[in-house]
Amino acid sequence: MSTAINRRWLLASRPEGAPVPENFRIDDAEIPTPGAGEMLLRVIYLSLDPYMRGRMSDAKSYAAPVPIDGVMEGETVAEVMESNNPDFTPGDIVLARVGWQSYGLSDGTGVRKVAAGAAPISTALGVLGMPGLTAYAGLKNIGTPKEGETVVVAAASGPVGSAVGQIAKIRGARAVGIAGGAEKCAYLIEELGFDAAVDHRAPDFAEQLAKACPDGIDVYFENVSGKVFDAVFPLFNQFARMPVCGTIAFYNATSFPEMGTNVPALMRAVLTKRLRIQGFIVYDFASDYPDFARDMAGWIADGRVKYREDIVEGIEVAPEAFIGLLKGKNFGKMVVRIGQDPVETS
Amino acid sequence: MSTAINRRWLLASRPEGAPVPENFRIDDAEIPTPGAGEMLLRVIYLSLDPYMRGRMSDAKSYAAPVPIDGVMEGETVAEVMESNNPDFTPGDIVLARVGWQSYGLSDGTGVRKVAAGAAPISTALGVLGMPGLTAYAGLKNIGTPKEGETVVVAAASGPVGSAVGQIAKIRGARAVGIAGGAEKCAYLIEELGFDAAVDHRAPDFAEQLAKACPDGIDVYFENVSGKVFDAVFPLFNQFARMPVCGTIAFYNATSFPEMGTNVPALMRAVLTKRLRIQGFIVYDFASDYPDFARDMAGWIADGRVKYREDIVEGIEVAPEAFIGLLKGKNFGKMVVRIGQDPVETS
Repeated sequence: MSTAINRRWLLASRPEGAPVPENFRIDDAEIPTPGAGEMLLRVIYLSLDPYMRGRMSDAKSYAAPVPIDGVMEGETVAEVMESNNPDFTPGDIVLARVGWQSYGLSDGTGVRKVAAGAAPISTALGVLGMPGLTAYAGLKNIGTPKEGETVVVAAASGPVGSAVGQIAKIRGARAVGIAGGAEKCAYLIEELGFDAAVDHRAPDFAEQLAKACPDGIDVYFENVSGKVFDAVFPLFNQFARMPVCGTIAFYNATSFPEMGTNVPALMRAVLTKRLRIQGFIVYDFASDYPDFARDMAGWIADGRVKYREDIVEGIEVAPEAFIGLLKGKNFGKMVVRIGQDPVETS
Repeated sequence: MSTAINRRWLLASRPEGAPVPENFRIDDAEIPTPGAGEMLLRVIYLSLDPYMRGRMSDAKSYAAPVPIDGVMEGETVAEVMESNNPDFTPGDIVLARVGWQSYGLSDGTGVRKVAAGAAPISTALGVLGMPGLTAYAGLKNIGTPKEGETVVVAAASGPVGSAVGQIAKIRGARAVGIAGGAEKCAYLIEELGFDAAVDHRAPDFAEQLAKACPDGIDVYFENVSGKVFDAVFPLFNQFARMPVCGTIAFYNATSFPEMGTNVPALMRAVLTKRLRIQGFIVYDFASDYPDFARDMAGWIADGRVKYREDIVEGIEVAPEAFIGLLKGKNFGKMVVRIGQDPVETS
């Protein structure tokens, strides 16, 4: 072990609006000792994801909030250092929800070994992990894109959006991505093979989106809401599907922001266009994981799915990186390197 | 033939807001002569349904509007008088979209024979017809009520709502009906076996609905929207389903009315509660008809499903009856008797 302490980020206070550095407090603690059936995990990579904003609030949601003075929650790739659990051996690399800290205990519940494969272990937090499965299962169970249909996704250069677009292409659909700025839009088309990309910062964003979808929209994979939804809404085709896995536009809102679309107009369209709008979180489709893991590993191996990681160094920068993530400052899957990868040291 | 003319209602003008008598014009025409492959139909019963309000407008919808000076559209039970179609014989009783008129031609497309059975032939327009199938298929394909769940439906004494509640009971769910006035509410509980009924005219309607759903709402069968939806919305349980087959509250609106629920709040709930909201029209589930016809006939025969018809006499009253229907003045399936039932004359 390279450090003798467990450095961790606690939730100091609940944000009002966008999180600020003062909402987090760094703390050094003893490295804990595993009890019966437990193991000690050393975090290598911490995933930062927009849903964490929800856990910082005490508004009712699908998961309990992080308590004040609790360790910030999060998924990690970690190394088993000691194990009193017969299913795990020191040296194993695992996926576990250790949170924003350098060490943690686990009784093995929900912990999965990370296969040493073609892709770096950090991808277990991204394209081969929860974001990738979110895209895969949301399309499989709700979006169901068909050959020739148009699939639109926002935050399209992020880990969920980039997988949505690339899987849509594999399914024979047309992929239209929405992203912030020319660099990300160029990446969608040139690197990921999207058919069109639209910059949501453009003043004529809605018109550009309409032009990019000349045959309307059959699937809108919703992860942002707000003004992007307003622009998508008039373009829905008959029987369009809208899997909803996030509403990033509202995560920092202290009250519900104005939107151009109202509920009566929405319900009228739901009826006359027979829309399907359905929320989900990735854990609802955990049973799709084996198919996903096989398909996605194959697509990465044969170059049909590409991914991009935005890795920052050191647990100390986690709050700053997370605050930037909510502003769209990342470019690719946001990951914090907390400890050394055993591959690097071997 | 008891009359030598074809009396019919034409669309004189498009309504602004609620339809008024002046939007309709009565007209007497020759009884048409069937051509090759066609048959002459004599209308016995005309169905009046809220969706017809949509056909009077030229707003884009799932079906084309009735043209000005065109015959008002509608489903009818009719007798085949002459037939150049080998599939139909004079004397056959059929279900056909003849519209608001006493005679019409058909080439047989979409025409179905009405089985002489336990229930009167008029029920082919109600509990054994499109409204019954709307309830059956909306629950089967989207609502999917499970044992012990709570199913809420508005316009619950109408043909769709009453079938929704009774099918929900057959599926083992708890049925809560919303209707206008004490008489209809009493009917829901005493005659149809709903577990609870709430009067949407009550000043404390939302509180009463919450009390009637102590375990929340798992299925809300949406056919009205507006303030009823506002009251339902906070009561949704995790994974609640909302089949949307109508938005009667808006049918007469000249602009979208105010609602207490906004789109950001709705989308947040869709995500955090994993709601499924899906629009449909009955023709989307035409393939469910055989199962429906078998099940529903059985349920009527063994008394598990009851129905009520509100039959008015004579084609002349059709506009007045339709205007009343949109105000909830009917009590049961609204049907106009246009011509004599052969059963009555035999």
